[in-house]
Amino acid sequence: MEESPARSFDVRVVGRVRSELTDLEAAPPQGEGAPEAWLVFDDELEPALADLRPGSHAYVLTWLDRADRDVLAVHPRGDRSRLEVGVFSTRSPHRPNPIGLHRVEVVAVNGTSVLVRPLEAVDGTPVVDVKPVLSGEGA
Amino acid sequence: MEESPARSFDVRVVGRVRSELTDLEAAPPQGEGAPEAWLVFDDELEPALADLRPGSHAYVLTWLDRADRDVLAVHPRGDRSRLEVGVFSTRSPHRPNPIGLHRVEVVAVNGTSVLVRPLEAVDGTPVVDVKPVLSGEGA
Repeated sequence: MEESPARSFDVRVVGRVRSELTDLEAAPPQGEGAPEAWLVFDDELEPALADLRPGSHAYVLTWLDRADRDVLAVHPRGDRSRLEVGVFSTRSPHRPNPIGLHRVEVVAVNGTSVLVRPLEAVDGTPVVDVKPVLSGEGA
Repeated sequence: MEESPARSFDVRVVGRVRSELTDLEAAPPQGEGAPEAWLVFDDELEPALADLRPGSHAYVLTWLDRADRDVLAVHPRGDRSRLEVGVFSTRSPHRPNPIGLHRVEVVAVNGTSVLVRPLEAVDGTPVVDVKPVLSGEGA
């Protein structure tokens, strides 16, 4: 008998955002004037981030732990005069898996802390992955 | 006393890749000649994907469930003659959280099935999120 495939997996927090942004309501929409922020990784992750270089471009993946995971459609930018749109066509944090995808520039690396910009995630947001931007992705 | 923050979260499978690619070893490296593939979503996700349109560009996020999550550095492209690189500077599936990030074009939508290209994930790979590409991301 074939084993039925897993319905969920365990995503581990590998670091945290340290940012001047603390108010979720005041956080800017994605891509609009977010500040620099530090990503502070757990010490044991040092080998994973050892080759991050200032000036390089990366995707930071976060887990937006204050999101509502039962939301499947939203009014764009919270404007209730606009028709609802399926969350897979928006960057709303409210979605079944609230993974934040942030395209950033690496500004500085200091031990297991990495300064990036821009980052619209609020202070304390869990970091789950970092990936380089590939050349075909508009670097 | 402040509650200590969560160390992990539950990522839910919202769909599966249906692809002609079945052999992990034969799967092409990211961005190199991958085929079209269907994303087949659970029926209850229909409102989330209702606004996906053919011709639009999206990020598909997968969970690469066959990856080795204890790997922190890899030889680029598996070439052991090259120095190891921290996984946060590579797109290797082997990393603490094996989230696959795939930039695709939506080719067709048929109910809760979405045809995309290119997608180098193998048949059966769990899908965890879909996001639109924003205009500042080289769309």
